[in-house]
Amino acid sequence: MREALAEPGRVRALFLTGEARQRHGDLVGLAVASGVEVCQASGRVLTELSETVTPQGIVAVCERIDVSLEAALLPGARLAVLLAAIRDPGNAGTVLRTADAAGADVVAFSDTSVDPYNGKCVRASAGSLFHLPIVLGAPVAATIAHMRRAGFQVLAADGAATRDIDDLDRSGDLARPTMWVFGNEAWGLPADIVGAADAAVRVPIHGRAESLNLAAAAAVCLYAAARAQRAVG
Amino acid sequence: MREALAEPGRVRALFLTGEARQRHGDLVGLAVASGVEVCQASGRVLTELSETVTPQGIVAVCERIDVSLEAALLPGARLAVLLAAIRDPGNAGTVLRTADAAGADVVAFSDTSVDPYNGKCVRASAGSLFHLPIVLGAPVAATIAHMRRAGFQVLAADGAATRDIDDLDRSGDLARPTMWVFGNEAWGLPADIVGAADAAVRVPIHGRAESLNLAAAAAVCLYAAARAQRAVG
Repeated sequence: MREALAEPGRVRALFLTGEARQRHGDLVGLAVASGVEVCQASGRVLTELSETVTPQGIVAVCERIDVSLEAALLPGARLAVLLAAIRDPGNAGTVLRTADAAGADVVAFSDTSVDPYNGKCVRASAGSLFHLPIVLGAPVAATIAHMRRAGFQVLAADGAATRDIDDLDRSGDLARPTMWVFGNEAWGLPADIVGAADAAVRVPIHGRAESLNLAAAAAVCLYAAARAQRAVG
Repeated sequence: MREALAEPGRVRALFLTGEARQRHGDLVGLAVASGVEVCQASGRVLTELSETVTPQGIVAVCERIDVSLEAALLPGARLAVLLAAIRDPGNAGTVLRTADAAGADVVAFSDTSVDPYNGKCVRASAGSLFHLPIVLGAPVAATIAHMRRAGFQVLAADGAATRDIDDLDRSGDLARPTMWVFGNEAWGLPADIVGAADAAVRVPIHGRAESLNLAAAAAVCLYAAARAQRAVG
């Protein structure tokens, strides 16, 4: 919430209980200083607004922050993420947080993915929703085509790929401007999306696990790209 | 469950509803072939046994599989994990799964961590609980001392560390036999544990995120060590 209040014009209103008002004087101060409307409400109203079973008595109503892919992709960008049919809001939020940490320049949600404004996604993102440009409802094929025209290689994270990320790292290709495409938690990426990418890449499984979960695989992929890109400067 | 049934002597009994018995004929066949007792029970009993809100009508009662650190640490082992005060069973299970995928040789749970036999942890591990030696109730200081005597470097994952994992990678030190220590989700590792390790290491934050979540940080750390170790053979 502090993240959102720190961005001018991002928060429209702050609703909170009397108890939360006393507890979060700093946030109220921030809101007032930014000209944000502060409204006291009952615990019942807050519970409804926050869509959570353990509400904290404070809710910020924010402007939507998604932008077009064209607007999101600033000159110099080199690390992008496309979430294709990610359905679990906790997973989506966690990948968003990891993408932010790895220094990604943009995260696009496909039109088949969960809504990043879902409360669980917002919470799992731990503020990262407000840190980098978010594209909503991105059509997968058109987004891949757009990024390739913009000079990005498109890498499909695919547990069944023959090429693994360490091969790609050694070849030097990971240092190029890259968009990672991550697929659904249960069934991964369909063949047509994998086919549209420049390469399908897997995280190697050295032990006996059948697979990694989405958040862990995304962390390995995004940090490998960040490391390779920074090693070449 | 298939993972457990595949290990001789691991499953003591299989409880399932009549409906699940029809649905999972293959698992019942596996159980019968292995001499495992198969018991039909009501949905209510299964719900109680499975401790979950969406039970699948089938529960395997397993032998405990944890071993001592001495027994777990086989010659040639080079990647170990110590979970110190990890409290969330889902996190613990996910890190266990990631450790298995990265080829870890042993995962130790500190005496202050969640019980890995917790149902949520078992499910999040996606079978990895049965894939590699698990040590339970490990006293943190003694475990660190034991691993150092066994020739392992002990790395404390610590978001506040001055040294980052890419530095360590470039120095060649990541290729050494390594035990990673991961701390509590909320407060990380206390100073005495960090002090007992050979080095404190952070995953670099390139963007604006305050931190990574535990599972993502562990994935980056474990895969970095696996990659470095395999690069030197």
